[in-house]
Amino acid sequence: MQSKITLRDVARVAGVSRATVSLVVRRSPLVAEATRLRVEEVMASLDYVRDIGAARLRDKSSRTIGVLVPNLVNSFFTEFLSGVEQVMGEGERVVLLANSQDDPTRQDEILHRFRGHGVDGVILCPAQDTDPRLLGRLRQWDLAVVQALREIGVEETDFAGGNYIDAVALAMRHLVSLGHRRIAFLSVAAQTSAREERLKGLTQSLIETGAENGGIVEAELSWEGAARSAARILELPARPTAVLCFNDVLAAGLMAGLRQAGKVPGRDMAVVGLDDLPLAELLHPSLTSVAMMPQRIGELAARLLVRRMTDAKASIQRSILSGQLKVRESSGNRIV
Amino acid sequence: MQSKITLRDVARVAGVSRATVSLVVRRSPLVAEATRLRVEEVMASLDYVRDIGAARLRDKSSRTIGVLVPNLVNSFFTEFLSGVEQVMGEGERVVLLANSQDDPTRQDEILHRFRGHGVDGVILCPAQDTDPRLLGRLRQWDLAVVQALREIGVEETDFAGGNYIDAVALAMRHLVSLGHRRIAFLSVAAQTSAREERLKGLTQSLIETGAENGGIVEAELSWEGAARSAARILELPARPTAVLCFNDVLAAGLMAGLRQAGKVPGRDMAVVGLDDLPLAELLHPSLTSVAMMPQRIGELAARLLVRRMTDAKASIQRSILSGQLKVRESSGNRIV
Repeated sequence: MQSKITLRDVARVAGVSRATVSLVVRRSPLVAEATRLRVEEVMASLDYVRDIGAARLRDKSSRTIGVLVPNLVNSFFTEFLSGVEQVMGEGERVVLLANSQDDPTRQDEILHRFRGHGVDGVILCPAQDTDPRLLGRLRQWDLAVVQALREIGVEETDFAGGNYIDAVALAMRHLVSLGHRRIAFLSVAAQTSAREERLKGLTQSLIETGAENGGIVEAELSWEGAARSAARILELPARPTAVLCFNDVLAAGLMAGLRQAGKVPGRDMAVVGLDDLPLAELLHPSLTSVAMMPQRIGELAARLLVRRMTDAKASIQRSILSGQLKVRESSGNRIV
Repeated sequence: MQSKITLRDVARVAGVSRATVSLVVRRSPLVAEATRLRVEEVMASLDYVRDIGAARLRDKSSRTIGVLVPNLVNSFFTEFLSGVEQVMGEGERVVLLANSQDDPTRQDEILHRFRGHGVDGVILCPAQDTDPRLLGRLRQWDLAVVQALREIGVEETDFAGGNYIDAVALAMRHLVSLGHRRIAFLSVAAQTSAREERLKGLTQSLIETGAENGGIVEAELSWEGAARSAARILELPARPTAVLCFNDVLAAGLMAGLRQAGKVPGRDMAVVGLDDLPLAELLHPSLTSVAMMPQRIGELAARLLVRRMTDAKASIQRSILSGQLKVRESSGNRIV
């Protein structure tokens, strides 16, 4: 490897001050365009690399944050990430994403690696079965942490998410208004706060509407797993007329499974999802769902993290977005 | 922050040798289960963290690799990533993902950050309009690099990808065998090797089959962009009877757009995708596509990178997977 090029070397070759080079590196708008171009040219020719390690020691910031998600099956997370990236990009921070695959051991490993690399903060969507003491450990590390979409512990960190209790209520009221009286719930098996919240919403809605619990069926979070669940739903002793699904991935899989079983979703069985992924409009019948605006949740999580990185002592804050019902074809017509 | 806990501290408290603790940290199978549990318990209670920085100086490895993709719209990349993670997990490496958003400046920023954090290697799917000299710079950094799915420069790095020239030929022969004579191509606008390869396949297939080029229509890589392209395809002066799409995301969007225009995909217009995302089977009509096995390509890219990290001087290698045609409903019936 060549010997280290410094800011001073760049300044000397470009014939400008060290401060000017520093401004160019920081993308300051104060530098004239022609100067910026010349300095960048020199940096490229000298292969100048701002040493993140050195910068970190100096200003205690790597300008990098980590995002830890439990899977990438649900495109909700990729939309969420784009919101995080947008906010972090404004502050010229780079976002590194890692996937815990819903495994707490893997999650630990990744968090250690994030710490070892000196990330400034982490947005954590905790893996299922995460030990709640994890948050205490992260506090000892002096690592800024915001939880998003799922959480462990009660108000131990800032949190950004959607209001799924209300989202379930919106969907249930819609189905009941169409005449449905026996409604099943297709859930993921993973025990997380995201599941608890939906089930709480379900219980409240069943009480509120007087509808009958048509059964809770569990599926693996995958298209195939959800498709296989169709047979189990059709075999329920008292067959429901509608199924509310944990998210749109399960709803899409269930609709495919219903077709494989010779049933037409929306006609023979109403299907409603949660999240309103872009997918919802592409399906046929198009999928009724509750829009939870993942990109916006990502933005909120990022803003909470920026605030926490700036002020470790700030009071704990929660940003919870309400959903919006999107009625499409899969919930079918009014039953008479 | 508390004072630093060392391997020696853990050994003392657990009543074992420092070497034993080291074996536990490295997850060696040589340590008895009971010993391992005791040591892990002590590590947790002391909040022992293996210092990646120190480890790096010692064994010159952060056991972290970076993956840089141009977008996360296409779930192809999330499947690709799961292949990379599987192989890297075997070597107890952590995979950090970053999204260049197809912007070379952002990509530069991320690569600098990867370098600053001392990743051992990078799997790069280059952003559109990336300066080919980038590869030379990365070489000077002594960073192991494998390109995947897209590439800049000719055989400058190891490469893993799918054979899209053949994939296009498989799809075109299928359409021609069904009687189609005028076939349009729905492409992304981004000028990348991935686009060049498909267009090369298209030209070769048109010559081979004698079919007529029904027009090349460009869409933004998004569901909405592809849906909007339907109107433009329906307005082509000589309307094609079939559309081959750059990938399944565009194909799914096009099918939704055709429906919005009152046409039934598969009946009024044959639609074929490339990649065979899980989505293909969920659509209605189900989507004919060419399976490119992104997870397997991810595995191959990861194995190439492990090889490169182990032996910087190894000869350049290319791993190219062939696709497999999956005939479903969207290509419709034989036209007579």
